[in-house]
Amino acid sequence: MTNQRYVFFLSDGTGITAETLGGTILTQFEDIDFKKTTLPFINTPDKARNTVDYINHLASQGSRPIVFSTTVSDEIRGILRQCKAQFLDLFDTYLPAIEAELGLKSVHQAGRAHGLADVRRYNARIEAMNYAMEHDDGQSTRDLAKADVILIAPSRCGKTPTTLYLALQHGIFATNFPLTEEDLEAQKLPGSLAGLAGKCFGLTSEAERLHQVRTERRPGSKYASLPQCAYELRQAESLYRRQNVPFINSANMSIEEIAAVIMQEKALRRSPG
Amino acid sequence: MTNQRYVFFLSDGTGITAETLGGTILTQFEDIDFKKTTLPFINTPDKARNTVDYINHLASQGSRPIVFSTTVSDEIRGILRQCKAQFLDLFDTYLPAIEAELGLKSVHQAGRAHGLADVRRYNARIEAMNYAMEHDDGQSTRDLAKADVILIAPSRCGKTPTTLYLALQHGIFATNFPLTEEDLEAQKLPGSLAGLAGKCFGLTSEAERLHQVRTERRPGSKYASLPQCAYELRQAESLYRRQNVPFINSANMSIEEIAAVIMQEKALRRSPG
Repeated sequence: MTNQRYVFFLSDGTGITAETLGGTILTQFEDIDFKKTTLPFINTPDKARNTVDYINHLASQGSRPIVFSTTVSDEIRGILRQCKAQFLDLFDTYLPAIEAELGLKSVHQAGRAHGLADVRRYNARIEAMNYAMEHDDGQSTRDLAKADVILIAPSRCGKTPTTLYLALQHGIFATNFPLTEEDLEAQKLPGSLAGLAGKCFGLTSEAERLHQVRTERRPGSKYASLPQCAYELRQAESLYRRQNVPFINSANMSIEEIAAVIMQEKALRRSPG
Repeated sequence: MTNQRYVFFLSDGTGITAETLGGTILTQFEDIDFKKTTLPFINTPDKARNTVDYINHLASQGSRPIVFSTTVSDEIRGILRQCKAQFLDLFDTYLPAIEAELGLKSVHQAGRAHGLADVRRYNARIEAMNYAMEHDDGQSTRDLAKADVILIAPSRCGKTPTTLYLALQHGIFATNFPLTEEDLEAQKLPGSLAGLAGKCFGLTSEAERLHQVRTERRPGSKYASLPQCAYELRQAESLYRRQNVPFINSANMSIEEIAAVIMQEKALRRSPG
């Protein structure tokens, strides 16, 4: 019998913080089948009471649920706390400590973390995303000087997802260029990147992994063959070294991890939370 | 004089959880200039000691820094805790409570939240992102049946960023179609969406806001004019109602908020954490 447990992420906003917080903690427990539900926008006492009823109904059928909550209103939190669950609220836990440290009262406004509270930062993210879409895969060479970072790599090493993640999550102007057979042969950066080597960051992978990913796209092709993958990766790494382009092997990394390494190496600003 | 405070997000992984947690809490404080730094991948005692030295150096120059930490190793956390700062660790705070609740010990492994711990879920996200890129703005009608949700809206109401966010963050197969003048005139869904109305979700906006966004793209055009924007939005809302397509006004919402509403309305699964 699997050990099953209901988990709820409650918020008066999107629920992203509660999900991230709770999700991270739950990754530290194995062999439990967590049934996760996010309930966002609980911003009235009525909605809070309905949420409590819903959780209590499920609680009556099995183990005590676990609730991660991030509601700033004391009134709403007071209602939610009545649910028959292990109730963990981010603001309950940390806000008093930070208030004491800063000698300030917090503003208690909902939706500030993932709403439009910081319009300038938000618009920059959308602008960065439009830039990433317009420039993806070397489609455009317009405004390349505006790029914070230019990812280069052979096809299917993770350029596009990493670029979009950098833009969407961090508002970084990122773009990417494929390394063609000619670039790899000549051991040179693509022509349109002349003078922009300082913005470049290279990705490489493992031949087996690349072979596997490319095979899903074009089974049996030369493009997907193991020798071709091995050749392109060898040549790319040599090109990165020759052109002094920092690079990482993305084979066993998530896009979040690749992005974190790039931002650290290139000393790019982050715009967290 | 501005009240300034150094804030550090420390992690043995990407730092995303520490940033989200700390960032959310700090949005509740105004009039303080938080100088935020993320230090990821602190996964050896040496790196932890260097981090402490760095923070203590900055601490000696001004107010006590605030540190949000999410390191799972007790040894590394023990070292980091020595920094002269207000030290708040997510695992310190919540792990004992959850361990007690579940009657289980946690695994204490780093990088599980934003690494490749769950390969199947990760691959689904990348597949969703490729799907979103291939189908963006009605570019492709292949495999539309595979979509979890199809966003429809006049140009520049937020379809593309929302689609990419749903894919990248939640692994949802999302795509989007523009509503053309012909669609709006005929009050019908785009032809290629025949039979797929149940998957559709509409976006609308406010005429002034749309006018402003479109003007940045094509100043002085008919496309960007206020009457044209007002007309398209009016027709789109009427089309949504007529075709029973749920919709929201995205004018004052972030993509995170739009995505949260869509997932809730369409009862889409989330893959948090």
